Amino acid sequence: MGNRFLLSELAAKIGAELRGPDGEVNGISSIEDALPGQVTFLSNPKYAVHVRGTKASAVIAKDPVPGAECAFLLAANPYYAFACALELFHPPERPPAGVSPMASVHPGATLGKDVTIGPFCVLEEGAVVGDRVALIAGVYVGKGSSVGEDSLICPHVTLYHGVRIGKRAILHSGCVIGSDGFGFAPSAKGYRKILQIGTVEIDDDVEIGANTTIDRAALGVTRVGRGTKLDNLIQVGHNVVIGNDTVIAAQTGISGSCKVGSRVMIGGQAGLAGHLEVGDGVMLGARTGVASSLSAKETSAWSGAPAMPHKTWLRMAMLLPSLPELFRRVKRLEDGKKGKEEE
Amino acid sequence: MGNRFLLSELAAKIGAELRGPDGEVNGISSIEDALPGQVTFLSNPKYAVHVRGTKASAVIAKDPVPGAECAFLLAANPYYAFACALELFHPPERPPAGVSPMASVHPGATLGKDVTIGPFCVLEEGAVVGDRVALIAGVYVGKGSSVGEDSLICPHVTLYHGVRIGKRAILHSGCVIGSDGFGFAPSAKGYRKILQIGTVEIDDDVEIGANTTIDRAALGVTRVGRGTKLDNLIQVGHNVVIGNDTVIAAQTGISGSCKVGSRVMIGGQAGLAGHLEVGDGVMLGARTGVASSLSAKETSAWSGAPAMPHKTWLRMAMLLPSLPELFRRVKRLEDGKKGKEEE
Amino acid sequence: MGNRFLLSELAAKIGAELRGPDGEVNGISSIEDALPGQVTFLSNPKYAVHVRGTKASAVIAKDPVPGAECAFLLAANPYYAFACALELFHPPERPPAGVSPMASVHPGATLGKDVTIGPFCVLEEGAVVGDRVALIAGVYVGKGSSVGEDSLICPHVTLYHGVRIGKRAILHSGCVIGSDGFGFAPSAKGYRKILQIGTVEIDDDVEIGANTTIDRAALGVTRVGRGTKLDNLIQVGHNVVIGNDTVIAAQTGISGSCKVGSRVMIGGQAGLAGHLEVGDGVMLGARTGVASSLSAKETSAWSGAPAMPHKTWLRMAMLLPSLPELFRRVKRLEDGKKGKEEE
Repeated sequence: MGNRFLLSELAAKIGAELRGPDGEVNGISSIEDALPGQVTFLSNPKYAVHVRGTKASAVIAKDPVPGAECAFLLAANPYYAFACALELFHPPERPPAGVSPMASVHPGATLGKDVTIGPFCVLEEGAVVGDRVALIAGVYVGKGSSVGEDSLICPHVTLYHGVRIGKRAILHSGCVIGSDGFGFAPSAKGYRKILQIGTVEIDDDVEIGANTTIDRAALGVTRVGRGTKLDNLIQVGHNVVIGNDTVIAAQTGISGSCKVGSRVMIGGQAGLAGHLEVGDGVMLGARTGVASSLSAKETSAWSGAPAMPHKTWLRMAMLLPSLPELFRRVKRLEDGKKGKEEE
Repeated sequence: MGNRFLLSELAAKIGAELRGPDGEVNGISSIEDALPGQVTFLSNPKYAVHVRGTKASAVIAKDPVPGAECAFLLAANPYYAFACALELFHPPERPPAGVSPMASVHPGATLGKDVTIGPFCVLEEGAVVGDRVALIAGVYVGKGSSVGEDSLICPHVTLYHGVRIGKRAILHSGCVIGSDGFGFAPSAKGYRKILQIGTVEIDDDVEIGANTTIDRAALGVTRVGRGTKLDNLIQVGHNVVIGNDTVIAAQTGISGSCKVGSRVMIGGQAGLAGHLEVGDGVMLGARTGVASSLSAKETSAWSGAPAMPHKTWLRMAMLLPSLPELFRRVKRLEDGKKGKEEE
Repeated sequence: MGNRFLLSELAAKIGAELRGPDGEVNGISSIEDALPGQVTFLSNPKYAVHVRGTKASAVIAKDPVPGAECAFLLAANPYYAFACALELFHPPERPPAGVSPMASVHPGATLGKDVTIGPFCVLEEGAVVGDRVALIAGVYVGKGSSVGEDSLICPHVTLYHGVRIGKRAILHSGCVIGSDGFGFAPSAKGYRKILQIGTVEIDDDVEIGANTTIDRAALGVTRVGRGTKLDNLIQVGHNVVIGNDTVIAAQTGISGSCKVGSRVMIGGQAGLAGHLEVGDGVMLGARTGVASSLSAKETSAWSGAPAMPHKTWLRMAMLLPSLPELFRRVKRLEDGKKGKEEE
């Protein structure tokens, strides 16, 4: 189970400095669960106390923890070094290349080298799958859609027609890319569907969570930029444009035609109303409700609904439970009483 | 790519009046992206300024925009006329009729004329699929469920047993119709499942978004009325009844046994507690939290959590960030100081 | 359609006492819809008035309703007795055992006795499916994953590799178990994925709703305890641990590394920030936003965002619409006016 390294080798590979005795390690685990012969990591100094009790042979950390008996692998960015170490101990296994006889591949689809097309996948006419792409099972690739090389598409993903997925993307199970945007023209006889004739483009190195939905544009393109990571159960409406290296946590909803910048961080269950902009580098706390455009100029961190600077929101939120008391205090003042209630 | 029309022809077909020179057009695009030879539209007067810069040959609009050089196709409801024009330029293509040899169709299932049953679809015993219905791929139709004529069912949709889908419905990928409602009887030994023996009925002309879930009734029927449109990732609980021509935006949740009227509009991420009524014509803003029944009699627009008249909510929401300041002001008054803080 | 019983027989089987004349009954329905020959139930005394008008032959209730003409089946826990009666009238039908020739079963997978493996299911190497398990159709069971005996897995469920599902579980369509947790190490060159090498364990008697997603642990195990019930479209982050007999309503999100106790009740659209604890027996109202750990010691019922005692929240929420008025009242006081506004 897993590979083995000398700590000195491992240090060299992950760009860390070994502090302490060298020795062989064979796995990686959490601070609490690690056994002798394993490596663990400390990225949040708040958990330093656990390092003293760990059985791990070495800890990846920014600084040594005084009083700890294990070796240290010191790195400026320990979480990043940990990510690298994980890949060394658990090199990702691509499924074996080949096209399942139980897949349905249109003769007009194009397959790259060493692709994996699992059972019950459907590739429609004009679908293009790049080198070393893996469609695990039950993946639907619509007419003329393409998946860039080295991408991993998990079971039951749907790519509607004409959608473009970049290289090294990871699409988790059940996500839907290119469903129709939500557009209807009201009339006296009810709603008439606005055909959604645009498409979706997902750039390289994007990861998309399970059961997340990204609608195709009405006209034009819904776009997710390079390196952006979307968690599970997120809704991305039609014509949304998301920049590069943005991370969005689960169950957030982004309404149609929003522009979300690069290096934005959005907490879970946040919501953006339609046609607004969230600028580069903005951080939105969990459940933030954005009703108008925000940039990082005034302040980078926003929370609350409607969104306000995070610090204001913290003070406001702390006071909400005292609102009934405030009403009583104002009543007392109106009644001509001075000073605080004696309670 | 697409059809060609004289502007005069197009005007006649979409019920608009041509103002300006006639000429051939071959496509439709957004105001910013339109090229000569294309048509665009203006439904929100706020974007009128862009009309002056557009390269489009004609703009579908309510009124001509002074100073614009293009032709106009004038319509009382320009968004509706645009919907019609889109269909002319992009007539929807039904997939070719036929039953894939890679589908699993029970001999006791009934197929109408010219149906499309794509690969990896499952039709259980007693399933009924009307004329010209398309099940694209990987669609599951449970025992005794039926899909009305001309409906389009996208990949990976699940219809549990005994569910009825009307005519001309569009069900997007991953939506689940007829899963068990969430009902459990607590006891000293834990929860006991309440069998959900009811069903779901979806009326004609309904569209249901990707990964939306609609639970079957415990007893009786969960119902979605004619012409109603549901966006992605919506939850509809057991025994909910939704009227006609209602539109509900993404990630909204409707708890069990709610009655939602006709021509209701619900914004994204709204939530309705169980067993309540939202009357005909009510509008709920995004993220509204409805804890008791609402009708359009007092006011039609509601927002906030708990729901309050939209206008009240607007004022309230604007004041929330000033709550810390209000606490300080009350403290000052209690301390016997008059007037505003000098800040 | 359904079985027939004498009321006296039915009473004995569900642990109720017959009050009124014996007679044959053949079905179960709601108070409003029940016909002669059917049984109904009253669990909420608020609906007692409907009992007088019901056509049902008998009502399962805690106490007889004065003035009602039907028989009563008296039970201490009428909702539980109703659950039992439903099972008698509608004994759950397991689909016929057998492995579809249209399934893809790896020779290294292990199948118990009397399993149902429907069309387009995939069992990867090392997958283990216990006795009498039913995988209805299009279910994906990853490498080395196992499903305990008597479990029912609905269409289009995905179990990633190495996931363990207990006995008598019910997994509804489209749920995803074992997708990667959301973990990325930021660096100057963008985010680097933290491999998620942990797993998911779902204990016995758990039910998981449609399109719910449960991420695998980064290291270690994401765990859902015995008898716990999750509704639709719920997000459970990596390394979350949920206790036994907990119920969680639709669209709730539980961030990574949370510990949720046993017998907890969580309303719909609630959200828990990461790394916090919700103690045994806590009740969270719909849409509660939990930002720090909560226990049932201070109070068991919490609501609001940020979470506060439910009673405080009720008072607070009632006052929110009056906040604009409160600002005006404070302004009046600052202006030196006493008493209430004359409005």
